[in-house]
Amino acid sequence: MNSVTNDKVIQLSHGGGGKEMNRLIKDIFFNAFDNAILRKEEDAAVLHFDGNVAFTTDSFTVAPIFFAGGDIGKLAVAGTVNDLAMMGAEPQFLSCSVIIEEGFEITKLKTIVASMATELKKSNTRIVCGDTKVVPKGCVDGLFINTSGVGQIIKPDISVKNLEAGDCIIVSRDIGRHGAAILMAREGLTLESELTSDCANLWPIVEQLIAANVEVHAMRDATRGGMSAVLNEWAKASNVCIEVKEEAVPVSDEVKGLCELYGFEPFDLANEGTFIVAVPADNAEKALNVMQQFCHCQTASIIGQVTEQQNNQGKVILQTPWGSARYLDVPQGELLPRIC
Amino acid sequence: MNSVTNDKVIQLSHGGGGKEMNRLIKDIFFNAFDNAILRKEEDAAVLHFDGNVAFTTDSFTVAPIFFAGGDIGKLAVAGTVNDLAMMGAEPQFLSCSVIIEEGFEITKLKTIVASMATELKKSNTRIVCGDTKVVPKGCVDGLFINTSGVGQIIKPDISVKNLEAGDCIIVSRDIGRHGAAILMAREGLTLESELTSDCANLWPIVEQLIAANVEVHAMRDATRGGMSAVLNEWAKASNVCIEVKEEAVPVSDEVKGLCELYGFEPFDLANEGTFIVAVPADNAEKALNVMQQFCHCQTASIIGQVTEQQNNQGKVILQTPWGSARYLDVPQGELLPRIC
Repeated sequence: MNSVTNDKVIQLSHGGGGKEMNRLIKDIFFNAFDNAILRKEEDAAVLHFDGNVAFTTDSFTVAPIFFAGGDIGKLAVAGTVNDLAMMGAEPQFLSCSVIIEEGFEITKLKTIVASMATELKKSNTRIVCGDTKVVPKGCVDGLFINTSGVGQIIKPDISVKNLEAGDCIIVSRDIGRHGAAILMAREGLTLESELTSDCANLWPIVEQLIAANVEVHAMRDATRGGMSAVLNEWAKASNVCIEVKEEAVPVSDEVKGLCELYGFEPFDLANEGTFIVAVPADNAEKALNVMQQFCHCQTASIIGQVTEQQNNQGKVILQTPWGSARYLDVPQGELLPRIC
Repeated sequence: MNSVTNDKVIQLSHGGGGKEMNRLIKDIFFNAFDNAILRKEEDAAVLHFDGNVAFTTDSFTVAPIFFAGGDIGKLAVAGTVNDLAMMGAEPQFLSCSVIIEEGFEITKLKTIVASMATELKKSNTRIVCGDTKVVPKGCVDGLFINTSGVGQIIKPDISVKNLEAGDCIIVSRDIGRHGAAILMAREGLTLESELTSDCANLWPIVEQLIAANVEVHAMRDATRGGMSAVLNEWAKASNVCIEVKEEAVPVSDEVKGLCELYGFEPFDLANEGTFIVAVPADNAEKALNVMQQFCHCQTASIIGQVTEQQNNQGKVILQTPWGSARYLDVPQGELLPRIC
């Protein structure tokens, strides 16, 4: 490699703890994420809290790094912001830890960091601490990002354990888009209409749900394992039965088509900007009204309810359009590796 | 691979968000890290804070995963605990996010997790949230761990910007052991005497320094970039000159020998349980007394002081045993990739 090429790619020295690393961090990360706390450059960020705080972590290894509707940077911010939002916490502060393969193109890194910065602005979230590691060629596939997050809880008592008989189950939009978009990118498929990932920062919607005083029992973004994983976890944790009307679950034609082609179920596909919420029946309309004001949630729908079926506590029942019913189980096996 | 072998290694399904992942998380991580917050299994841990809180993150990619004096698990806990401790914060809560290569041996994973649990106990730290990703063979080299941490600040105003002329610079023990131990492991070297990494949880010492009411201006563990990186950062951030007596810096014979062999400087080598502290001169003896009570810090020494040299603000000067002086600069280039 000549020196011109070397300037354009990440080198091992960028992770060595010396001059090159300091320059990389300042030029790329500090520039994009600039804020007063980050500028202090201590070993740890100093934050102030009074009260209950949510704390969460997520590593992102998605392949490919760029996909229709997002990239690993957007995903890394949205994913952790959403985990906080789902707990009724304001996504105030994130960490950003990157592991980069030697030889990774610096222009790509800049694009990813810029897309993180864009996503942060949507929820007024700040990256306040970080870490940069560079590993030799072949030790990691491109770039992995970990984001952890902390934020004050402003809507308490949202929990997987709080579902009650009579609660309505609402999904915020059509499901399965992220899984389908990654599958498409990986298989090099092109569809007639444009299928994009649902990857999105959910705090603006959650903030409005809280402002509208919607009573939320449980709330979760349906990431790995999709809708099936969330509903099963809820049914088990709250010891209730959840009955879902298959017809009521919004699924786009593109996702349906891909599922038929590959033998997947849309319920099992990952989402990255789609959430499920359980609210008392008399709060359902209010919740729907708030959600449907957001353009990506115009298809928000009541898909089922929590019932008192004594023999099916801890189970999720799917009522098919043909009048039959079956258990919707937790996914098993590996559908799509490196989905997030 | 037959099914017996399959049971002994990590499979892609262990990261799929379904049954296998739930089982892995419960069997391995929850068992080892068990605590009331983790057991709640929400999207995020709920913590309570009143006041200032430190927040930090670190990813660990060390190779080899097992080395003399530790492993990636011990390192991942000690590293993040130490970042909090260095800010005068009690290391209360950690996250644990692992990225595992398909085919990784489950017994190795258990060993690493057990060593994390052991290290956590030393500072009464709890892992309260986590994430598990599995990537296909060849997409990551073995196992990477990210730990992020939060904890209440109990000793405020420790900062890279707080050094003052007259401050004594103390190092907690002989330097360069971690870098040397990794180098040894990687090169397959064996020495007559046993050289081990200094990898250690520093909270017990810091807690005693705080309890003894030692006035601390700056404190930092000398990880990547070693002592050189820390002192240069301090000199720059506080706009002072730091003068170090080379003879006063404790270095073991083994580290000296390896440095001569490979052309390294002990000042540049990474440490993982060695810290540097700047205290007012009249607090130096008290600090030394506290530190030397700990068996791994019996060689804690005053190595230099902060001076008012007008022409050398922002610089670190090394006074050699031969009466000459030179600048001790920030390391440049890549000494040892994947040191932590």
